[in-house]
Amino acid sequence: MGGDLAPSEIVLGSLRAAEQLGVPIILVGRTSELGDTGDLEVFEASEVIEMTDEPGAAIRRKKDSSLVRCAELVRDGKASAMVSAGNTGATMGSALLRMGRIKGVSRPAVATPIPVPGSTPTTLLDAGANAECQPEWLVQFAQMGSAYARARFAIDAPKVGLLSIGEEPTKGNSLVKDTHALLSSAGGVNFIGNVEGRDIMTTAVDVVVTDGFTGNVVLKALEGGMQAIAKGLLDAFSTTPERQRARDELMPALLEFYGVMNPDTYGGAFLLGTDGVCVICHGSSNAGAIANAIGVATEMVATDLVGVLRSAVAK
Amino acid sequence: MGGDLAPSEIVLGSLRAAEQLGVPIILVGRTSELGDTGDLEVFEASEVIEMTDEPGAAIRRKKDSSLVRCAELVRDGKASAMVSAGNTGATMGSALLRMGRIKGVSRPAVATPIPVPGSTPTTLLDAGANAECQPEWLVQFAQMGSAYARARFAIDAPKVGLLSIGEEPTKGNSLVKDTHALLSSAGGVNFIGNVEGRDIMTTAVDVVVTDGFTGNVVLKALEGGMQAIAKGLLDAFSTTPERQRARDELMPALLEFYGVMNPDTYGGAFLLGTDGVCVICHGSSNAGAIANAIGVATEMVATDLVGVLRSAVAK
Repeated sequence: MGGDLAPSEIVLGSLRAAEQLGVPIILVGRTSELGDTGDLEVFEASEVIEMTDEPGAAIRRKKDSSLVRCAELVRDGKASAMVSAGNTGATMGSALLRMGRIKGVSRPAVATPIPVPGSTPTTLLDAGANAECQPEWLVQFAQMGSAYARARFAIDAPKVGLLSIGEEPTKGNSLVKDTHALLSSAGGVNFIGNVEGRDIMTTAVDVVVTDGFTGNVVLKALEGGMQAIAKGLLDAFSTTPERQRARDELMPALLEFYGVMNPDTYGGAFLLGTDGVCVICHGSSNAGAIANAIGVATEMVATDLVGVLRSAVAK
Repeated sequence: MGGDLAPSEIVLGSLRAAEQLGVPIILVGRTSELGDTGDLEVFEASEVIEMTDEPGAAIRRKKDSSLVRCAELVRDGKASAMVSAGNTGATMGSALLRMGRIKGVSRPAVATPIPVPGSTPTTLLDAGANAECQPEWLVQFAQMGSAYARARFAIDAPKVGLLSIGEEPTKGNSLVKDTHALLSSAGGVNFIGNVEGRDIMTTAVDVVVTDGFTGNVVLKALEGGMQAIAKGLLDAFSTTPERQRARDELMPALLEFYGVMNPDTYGGAFLLGTDGVCVICHGSSNAGAIANAIGVATEMVATDLVGVLRSAVAK
């Protein structure tokens, strides 16, 4: 029921994923509003947490919401993963409250893939779950992010960088300085030191660790930057008939590049640290994005992501 | 003496600015290394603060460095502004220590123009002077940023946003929440509330206020994002002869757009709050960027930026 294009595109994406992947999918929501759901199983949930609802209050009040019910299906072993394009805070909250945390994890974090042209994406975490963080949490983010990048993008020993404002260990705010010291001796992490904002979209680093405030601001700044450039370029390419012809010639290249840069291609962000797989999709997700998200959720269930993360934080 | 292309491009840019603007320029540095300086006055400084030097220690130790001497010329009224492409921390430190702060200013902040296609740039501050901030400082950043945007980009009542992870006043870390409350009643600020990363490169906001850690990370993330896109697009446009021809047809549009998006076009960042004008250029600045920086420094001296800021923080 969640997302700007729900429920129609969510249902379409689910149908597509079921057909392409052959995995059983349970739609959770108001049966009467879902339209044609084909052969998919539907689990009735009478309430909807809106995009504008305050997450904490909504989860407590709307116990029969699609989000809460979906997380319960995972908790109860009736589903292997939850996928949502709805209210991000409520998605995280439902997963956390209903599935609980992996033993030993202080705080779950959102891991978002940032596209890198010509290479595997960089995993940025925390991209928004925890606005304020302790150094010890960031160490766990590094451990979980490494395990995730290995499982998800087949990177053998992911290069983990701590996001700061200079490469030297003395650069940054106190959170970063304290975390730097801890990360230098953390197990299971190939820590390459501090990285800067300009390194995120390069091959210099595979996993970028930061607090959820900075991570979310950076993620959205990059999204906004991409949109501004896309619009600006298309405007600049449309001023004369000659330019328009050249633009049309280049359209396949532009669309191909847009595919590489579009976060939807990578199937959404993962909430790492809950005792069950939870994929958070962009609010604007269309059927293709939802199908991709279900695909990567399926892959991560197959590789036992939760077990992998459990081992990672035990190091 | 500072910057990746110093001193040759710095001297060239100064010569160009002197010719185009008719303003007297003093070059500060090692006379013997400057090459042909034309009619420009040269003020000898025997030492150089390197890009890799730790700023605080370097300023204390290298009292005859070009940066320290340059700030002294402004302090002593022999120059109206300083412009540097050198070590950013040392530039800020020299200006702060030698010129001092405007009375009433708690902490100077770096104000950086972020390009917005089709509109005036958004002023982001603090872009790196203060890794950790108090809410009261951010209120002054908002006041100074507004006054600067008015003086620099002729924006009548600049829309000031507080960078956060959601529009609601309850969203963000504790610094942001505390600042939000203070900004709502601050004088001389057209406060529009919280803004998100995706708003920076749009016309939704004119001045974005944040702490120097977040601001610097975002600034560099956007720079890195632009570079990644530029490279990715040029690669995608070069795969076939047809695409290469279309690319060549569009090259004027690409270069024009690059000019809009290139920070050098806007003549560098301003350190706001010191008792004298200080312009901080990108380390990679070429002659054109330096000439632009001298141009905006000249403009800001003419509009009495320091006086304008003094009034702004007194509100």
